[in-house]
Amino acid sequence: MRALEITVAMTLTDAERAIREALAAHGFGVLTEIDVAATLKAKLGVERPALKILGACNPTLANRALDIDPSVALLLPCNVAIDETDGGTRVRVVDPHELMDDPRFAALADEATDRLQAAVDDLGLRAAN
Amino acid sequence: MRALEITVAMTLTDAERAIREALAAHGFGVLTEIDVAATLKAKLGVERPALKILGACNPTLANRALDIDPSVALLLPCNVAIDETDGGTRVRVVDPHELMDDPRFAALADEATDRLQAAVDDLGLRAAN
Repeated sequence: MRALEITVAMTLTDAERAIREALAAHGFGVLTEIDVAATLKAKLGVERPALKILGACNPTLANRALDIDPSVALLLPCNVAIDETDGGTRVRVVDPHELMDDPRFAALADEATDRLQAAVDDLGLRAAN
Repeated sequence: MRALEITVAMTLTDAERAIREALAAHGFGVLTEIDVAATLKAKLGVERPALKILGACNPTLANRALDIDPSVALLLPCNVAIDETDGGTRVRVVDPHELMDDPRFAALADEATDRLQAAVDDLGLRAAN
């Protein structure tokens, strides 16, 4: 599964706040949020490493994608998986080409990827400052 | 994009309630919910046909999937897309094999598909009664 990925020397909480701000700056709202570790702890009693999944969506791109083929709803929004690593916090954004692999979506997937990569790059800059 | 699909002679509201109950009966909780039409109306001012996306998750299967490969978080949970058609309401569940296409996930994807298909079949029975 291709992803846009970065590991930053930040706590998970700080990295989540920073990637939310970076996503917003590049036109993506966060529509859903799952605290995976907390959910599985509550449901199964298991201890898992911290993991959050945010569902990011650019309304304009989503609207265009739905116009091309409404079945894109089966894979929207774009997941942003955030977990802890030895080096800090890892943020991975699913490559939009994985969600829209039909050639009709090529230009749209390219644009979404560029914007999401810019958000990931912003996170890197914030972490470095 | 492969999906488990059914169209039922119910309103979208009734079909959503029924598929939520059927998913719960087969071990899937609904962790996320997006009212796509309302979101795009609010963000862009566009009028789109009614469309909801539910994010369904079976905790036991998700836990096993994350043990096999944490990168499955890039595509979880399983989307359930609900929209209106001429015949009533269409409910489509993404085929879990689309989310877990690595052979290591084969048995897990088969089990998730069987459970989700059972939930879809239950919805059909509820609609017929």
